[in-house]
Amino acid sequence: MAFNRISDQLLKRFTEIVGEENIFTDRDKLEKYAHDETEDLVFYPQVAASPVNAGQISELLKLCSENMIPVTPRGAGTGLSGGALAVHEGLLMSTEKLNKIIEIDERNFQATLEAGVITEEFMNAAAEKGLFYPVDPSSKGSCFIGGNIAHGSGGPRVVKYGTIREYVLNLEVVLPDGEIIWTGANTLKYASGYNLTQLMIGSEGTLGIVTKAVLKLIPMPTQNLVMLASFPTNEEACAAVSSIFMTGVTPSTLEFMERRGVEWVIEYDHFQFYLKPGIEAFLMIEVDGDDMDLLMIEAEKINRALEAHGCADVLLADTSAQKEALWRMRRTMPLSVKSNSIYKEEDTVVPRAELPRLIHGIKQIGLRFGFDSVCYGHAGDGNLHVNIIKGIMSDADWNTKLKEGIREIFELTVSLGGTISGEHGIGLVQREFMGIKYSEGHMNLMRGIKGVFDPKGILNPGKIF
Amino acid sequence: MAFNRISDQLLKRFTEIVGEENIFTDRDKLEKYAHDETEDLVFYPQVAASPVNAGQISELLKLCSENMIPVTPRGAGTGLSGGALAVHEGLLMSTEKLNKIIEIDERNFQATLEAGVITEEFMNAAAEKGLFYPVDPSSKGSCFIGGNIAHGSGGPRVVKYGTIREYVLNLEVVLPDGEIIWTGANTLKYASGYNLTQLMIGSEGTLGIVTKAVLKLIPMPTQNLVMLASFPTNEEACAAVSSIFMTGVTPSTLEFMERRGVEWVIEYDHFQFYLKPGIEAFLMIEVDGDDMDLLMIEAEKINRALEAHGCADVLLADTSAQKEALWRMRRTMPLSVKSNSIYKEEDTVVPRAELPRLIHGIKQIGLRFGFDSVCYGHAGDGNLHVNIIKGIMSDADWNTKLKEGIREIFELTVSLGGTISGEHGIGLVQREFMGIKYSEGHMNLMRGIKGVFDPKGILNPGKIF
Repeated sequence: MAFNRISDQLLKRFTEIVGEENIFTDRDKLEKYAHDETEDLVFYPQVAASPVNAGQISELLKLCSENMIPVTPRGAGTGLSGGALAVHEGLLMSTEKLNKIIEIDERNFQATLEAGVITEEFMNAAAEKGLFYPVDPSSKGSCFIGGNIAHGSGGPRVVKYGTIREYVLNLEVVLPDGEIIWTGANTLKYASGYNLTQLMIGSEGTLGIVTKAVLKLIPMPTQNLVMLASFPTNEEACAAVSSIFMTGVTPSTLEFMERRGVEWVIEYDHFQFYLKPGIEAFLMIEVDGDDMDLLMIEAEKINRALEAHGCADVLLADTSAQKEALWRMRRTMPLSVKSNSIYKEEDTVVPRAELPRLIHGIKQIGLRFGFDSVCYGHAGDGNLHVNIIKGIMSDADWNTKLKEGIREIFELTVSLGGTISGEHGIGLVQREFMGIKYSEGHMNLMRGIKGVFDPKGILNPGKIF
Repeated sequence: MAFNRISDQLLKRFTEIVGEENIFTDRDKLEKYAHDETEDLVFYPQVAASPVNAGQISELLKLCSENMIPVTPRGAGTGLSGGALAVHEGLLMSTEKLNKIIEIDERNFQATLEAGVITEEFMNAAAEKGLFYPVDPSSKGSCFIGGNIAHGSGGPRVVKYGTIREYVLNLEVVLPDGEIIWTGANTLKYASGYNLTQLMIGSEGTLGIVTKAVLKLIPMPTQNLVMLASFPTNEEACAAVSSIFMTGVTPSTLEFMERRGVEWVIEYDHFQFYLKPGIEAFLMIEVDGDDMDLLMIEAEKINRALEAHGCADVLLADTSAQKEALWRMRRTMPLSVKSNSIYKEEDTVVPRAELPRLIHGIKQIGLRFGFDSVCYGHAGDGNLHVNIIKGIMSDADWNTKLKEGIREIFELTVSLGGTISGEHGIGLVQREFMGIKYSEGHMNLMRGIKGVFDPKGILNPGKIF
């Protein structure tokens, strides 16, 4: 990878393409592009550009290709694996000005939008037309649809509604050589050669830059119920997850929270909640649909499943205020935990019936390596976010021993049929663990695909591989 | 592509690997491998093998790779695009003996099975445990799961439940060089590098041979209703499709049938059905769930949507016998149409609100080129199977002019936001139309991916490209 720096002459050509108002070289202007939400990594690009359409991105990419300039595509910078960081300097390509919802097509339950649209704004626009876009990562208020696509995003509703992978019908993509293609068709079915739409999803900006998406929408459910169930141990709460599904009910969300997470929300957010002694873990369960009587029957079935796992108490929220309070508790948890200590977040995922073994194993590994952890996450999908807490761990241990512990957590995850990231992606920080999951031959297939799309390796270098 | 023929010495080594009982060279034994369900194509392989496990397939592929022998992977041979035909002779690799359901995991709602399991047998085995595998192509009684994966299969329930793409969690694949990999993890979420699982789906045996799959299962709905609605014109029936969804109800199937299709079922199958004059098209609509009262409300909403499109009559089937009769009509239609005339079937798909323009356009093209057609299919997904009927068309026109007409149909499909195959794949027979959908740059990406997996080009040559 013999990358070049951007010469003054090249910078002038960039400026001609996007206009002076969309090119940034001052350190204070570059600051906002230098980090994401991954711990405390900082990488300044040499230049940042915020083009306003795919044509400009195409022209910039052509120039970067010809001049061997590394390009880092970036959405809102809410990523948790360092994928949007310019580790090789070069040009940072922000999609923030591709922010138009082009069409919400009520006849076809589809929407066409630009990559820089904020996820929640799109959800709201669809909802105004009575349509539902269910993929809501916890950063939905600030993250972009394009970033969601790049990471194959999930969030709490995957358990019933699937990840973004099930909602992307077609993508406009600018390839590293500047060609603009649509990867698929605006159809629910597609058996017309290799599915490049699906290949782009989760490719973390290493194959092309997504500029537009056609997304599937579904009817909006009109009713829901939220329950909060308390358990004496983590293992019992996790074991209840699989039992809930075995009743035949598919919850629309099924979230796990450790007691400590709730304690820290109470502290951080001045959240009003009485935490009974003897309770170690919670499941927050939502069911949705169009008929409240049916939802009450489902809640009753779930209740019976919970009882078999020593569930001490079930709080049923049926007013919007109660529901909102419970969701606020869950949504504030990441920030509460992170504001409490230096931390490292890992994104484990296993088949959901293996959750008890996963959480037990994580705690055992923590004991051996001397670190504490707070876990929460989308238990219905078997997806547990593990927040490793520095606490009283020495700086030396934190910087050296910890990595071995994390490796063991991923080895455990893979041995249980899972993988090393459920929804945060590999980016920069999980690269070193790829060997736990993949053989050299498998990695070579991925490297080969990268080479087909980006033979010069200019696009988001230093990520995934 | 300088392929070699299989020498006697190589044949001996094949036989050592799979045993004499699993290797075929006699023309009468090869006959069953020489055709599929695509019109009347016949291609005899030089040798056919029916290995019993992935290890044998790996050894065979290594030898074929070293000796430049073309390999044609084959499931049950029910394909409609010639994908399983040995157009370059060589070795035909049948998966028919990989026929074990390894596990139905009720704790995780997952199943692990070999590629040669018959789809309906798997559905039944899951149903016995109260679980639902909803992907039922019309050949479900004979087709294999592996073939379904190779083609990204759909069927009538896609409209509510999605294609097989949404049920495949992980695949065991033998690569052309003999390496055996698992493409993903047994999890509902996966953000760990390029998604080779999704890339394999729909790759039609050109990248690797699928030997095992881990599939997602869902709870079995307990109730359903089937309705048959009659319309004065094709266009009105097609226009009703989008209106049905706009009521907020998502039917579990929504099938379109032209009058002529029904006439031919009556004739072919001695089917008892009074066909009223003035009716040109039908929609067969199923709703499913767990509460009959709710389904009746949904049926009522659908009814009101149908009325606005001149629907003359709605027949509501609520006994199993009535439902079965309607399904028999729909399922017998392909065979009835095909037994009536020489035909050619095309698999068009568009966003569903474009169906009226699609069917109107198909008929117009037919008028200009002098061919008749009978259409039916999965209208809820915008997927229409167009059966072009030779009828009184001359052999000369059938062999020359027809192709131009088909080209225009696909051009229309693509111009409406659709693609050239929804669920039948490209295989051998649609290759020549790929240029309608894809730019040269796009095709080169696909060719590049092919080259990464299969640098020698031995796997299913002559398909897709």
